[in-house]
Amino acid sequence: MPLVRISIVRDSLSAAAQRLLADGVHQALVSTAGVPADDRFQLLEELPPEGLIFDPHYLGIERRGPMACVQIFLNAGRSVAVKQALYAGLGEAAVAAGLRREDLLVNLVEVARENWSFGNGLMSYPPAAG
Amino acid sequence: MPLVRISIVRDSLSAAAQRLLADGVHQALVSTAGVPADDRFQLLEELPPEGLIFDPHYLGIERRGPMACVQIFLNAGRSVAVKQALYAGLGEAAVAAGLRREDLLVNLVEVARENWSFGNGLMSYPPAAG
Amino acid sequence: MPLVRISIVRDSLSAAAQRLLADGVHQALVSTAGVPADDRFQLLEELPPEGLIFDPHYLGIERRGPMACVQIFLNAGRSVAVKQALYAGLGEAAVAAGLRREDLLVNLVEVARENWSFGNGLMSYPPAAG
Repeated sequence: MPLVRISIVRDSLSAAAQRLLADGVHQALVSTAGVPADDRFQLLEELPPEGLIFDPHYLGIERRGPMACVQIFLNAGRSVAVKQALYAGLGEAAVAAGLRREDLLVNLVEVARENWSFGNGLMSYPPAAG
Repeated sequence: MPLVRISIVRDSLSAAAQRLLADGVHQALVSTAGVPADDRFQLLEELPPEGLIFDPHYLGIERRGPMACVQIFLNAGRSVAVKQALYAGLGEAAVAAGLRREDLLVNLVEVARENWSFGNGLMSYPPAAG
Repeated sequence: MPLVRISIVRDSLSAAAQRLLADGVHQALVSTAGVPADDRFQLLEELPPEGLIFDPHYLGIERRGPMACVQIFLNAGRSVAVKQALYAGLGEAAVAAGLRREDLLVNLVEVARENWSFGNGLMSYPPAAG
């Protein structure tokens, strides 16, 4: 169910590092947020350097880049504690891919369970019959 | 009001098939979800093959690719039945464009009516005066 | 905290105009929506002409293009009046970048405060201890 969009600067990560990052992002979702291992759908886009603008100091975090922006669309309802564990896991994923932990931005966008179709023109998580 | 983002793999669909897909997605919104025919705003991005990662079996649906990912930002409030009809219509749109129904992922992101400006720096759907 | 995604047609704006647009979008958020000046995180993507589809008349607004689509992911809770001021400011930003006010689409996607990590694997806006 999560749909993950990873945005990086073009040529800032090798193909192998990009795959490490995508793998690690998924693993963090599985290990911290109860996402099934086979529930993996990710988009990875490369932007030109001037297409990823970030403040180098916001909240006292020293960003140098290259940055990675990870936006996760997922079902609503994770607790604050789960989200905190997820962010920590995503930080690990960034480091494993050769990025600095400071250079990872994460944004969660929560949606209703009825808001997914993973194929066949069917609602994937219909509400239980009443 | 919907803003639609269609993501596909580069060169996986001809220009004509891409247009068929975009047309069909819009038609599904019009015929199932009450979207006005002239309320059409779509972004279509092409990603490299390694930029669209999907599980080939999740939920027992056999995906082979090429995949299309359709993310629809729209006003909240559609019923489950409307969303089901929309997913079915989007499946038809995929088939009409030469894709397999299994290879279409749909995600809806619902927002408030106040969250749109379609030009002129104005809120497009202001709340009724109280 | 806002994450801004600006989508334009490839080569429709010079690099300088793109930067003016991005600057103006951020300035509008700062001056109308209480966003800190150093809270700036923006993605700017260029799409092929056929990748940005828009209706030329919807809601009686005459769009000619080139269009800019500005999607802003931000914390929930801005009032209608703030959003109206934001749209007006974004219209100014478009004009400053050489676009027509008619050709700017804005969509806000609101999220919870817990839904951000701006680095270091930490939740950036944790809820106050109870």
